[in-house]
Amino acid sequence: MDSKFIVIEGLEGAGKTSAQAVVVETLRAFGIQDIVFTREPGGTPLAEKLRELIKQGVAGETLTDKAELLMLYAARVQLVENVIRPALARGAWVVGDRHDLSSQAYQGGGRGIDPQLLMSLRDTVLGAFRPDLTLYLDISPELGLKRARQRGELDRIEQESLAFFERTRARYQQLALQEDNIITIDASQVLPEVSADIRQALSGWLQREAITGKAAN
Amino acid sequence: MDSKFIVIEGLEGAGKTSAQAVVVETLRAFGIQDIVFTREPGGTPLAEKLRELIKQGVAGETLTDKAELLMLYAARVQLVENVIRPALARGAWVVGDRHDLSSQAYQGGGRGIDPQLLMSLRDTVLGAFRPDLTLYLDISPELGLKRARQRGELDRIEQESLAFFERTRARYQQLALQEDNIITIDASQVLPEVSADIRQALSGWLQREAITGKAAN
Repeated sequence: MDSKFIVIEGLEGAGKTSAQAVVVETLRAFGIQDIVFTREPGGTPLAEKLRELIKQGVAGETLTDKAELLMLYAARVQLVENVIRPALARGAWVVGDRHDLSSQAYQGGGRGIDPQLLMSLRDTVLGAFRPDLTLYLDISPELGLKRARQRGELDRIEQESLAFFERTRARYQQLALQEDNIITIDASQVLPEVSADIRQALSGWLQREAITGKAAN
Repeated sequence: MDSKFIVIEGLEGAGKTSAQAVVVETLRAFGIQDIVFTREPGGTPLAEKLRELIKQGVAGETLTDKAELLMLYAARVQLVENVIRPALARGAWVVGDRHDLSSQAYQGGGRGIDPQLLMSLRDTVLGAFRPDLTLYLDISPELGLKRARQRGELDRIEQESLAFFERTRARYQQLALQEDNIITIDASQVLPEVSADIRQALSGWLQREAITGKAAN
């Protein structure tokens, strides 16, 4: 089976880090050993610098929604061109903590940026590049933020209003229904159940990919 | 007369800094005292951080043309929203060392990014916001780079090939012909003559603006 790009998506506190461990364990059980991890925004030296600016902002200056969006895409194109594509080309699998769907949900849903503009920016910047599979961990903002708060201090984005995260979640849910290759996982369950669902969903997908040979494309 | 946004454009070594002094002196002679200076990329704390990343790059990582372009626009929207628009709104004049035309010329001409994509990005990010007047200092790359080299070490962009700057100049010249409100100054002349040409061009424009009252818009 050709190497694949698998993305884990969801609100703050949805359990993306735990999910990553389950994804890796499942891939290894399938005999896949060469796995590259990415996180967005970030994952290259330049993209990490942009991540810091996006997450923390700059003291005394308002970060406009448009600048935030442009910086997110600058970081993303660096990651795709310098890390993800080369990894896939040499046969490694890539497991990403967030990718483009986050921008569609947070900037489109949360911030209210025109979805058409976002799709157009995505196509302009990334061309036809897409993840092979996205696992969307669905959780209510109340529960997710409660979990995130237990981890410590909240960054600039995590301090947004509940309504912002409600809009973000609604967009995630809508896109998960509309787009191919997104599997929704109920992340409000207790951790062992979430992990079991991820394992099952991913194993099933891997088996189907191996059989249909869609991977050959 | 309402406040205006005047931009100075041109290749490295075209004499933008000297031109700025002449512009200010000419505006003062017209009784305009409240003048804000900007430079691009840069001009806000965040935009200056982006400037540094764009100018110096990050060690060991290739900066893609698309990421460079997106960072330039992120810096620009911060400057426009946080500095230029507020300055114009309180009645100050703004004199800019570079603005959007630089991206059209360097990224479009020099790097070969599709002009339609650039125009679309400009409209998406800036809407209808444009300078009232652009003074384009036209100079050959040979002469400009010779002058720039005399100033000291060259940055990442100044180290581009002569062919890159030839393409950039050609796009500048083309846009100066096509677009309104761009005056071309022959910057290959000796400094006193360049300054005289700028003074004359700007004075004439200010007089016409004062008479026609276009400023009222």
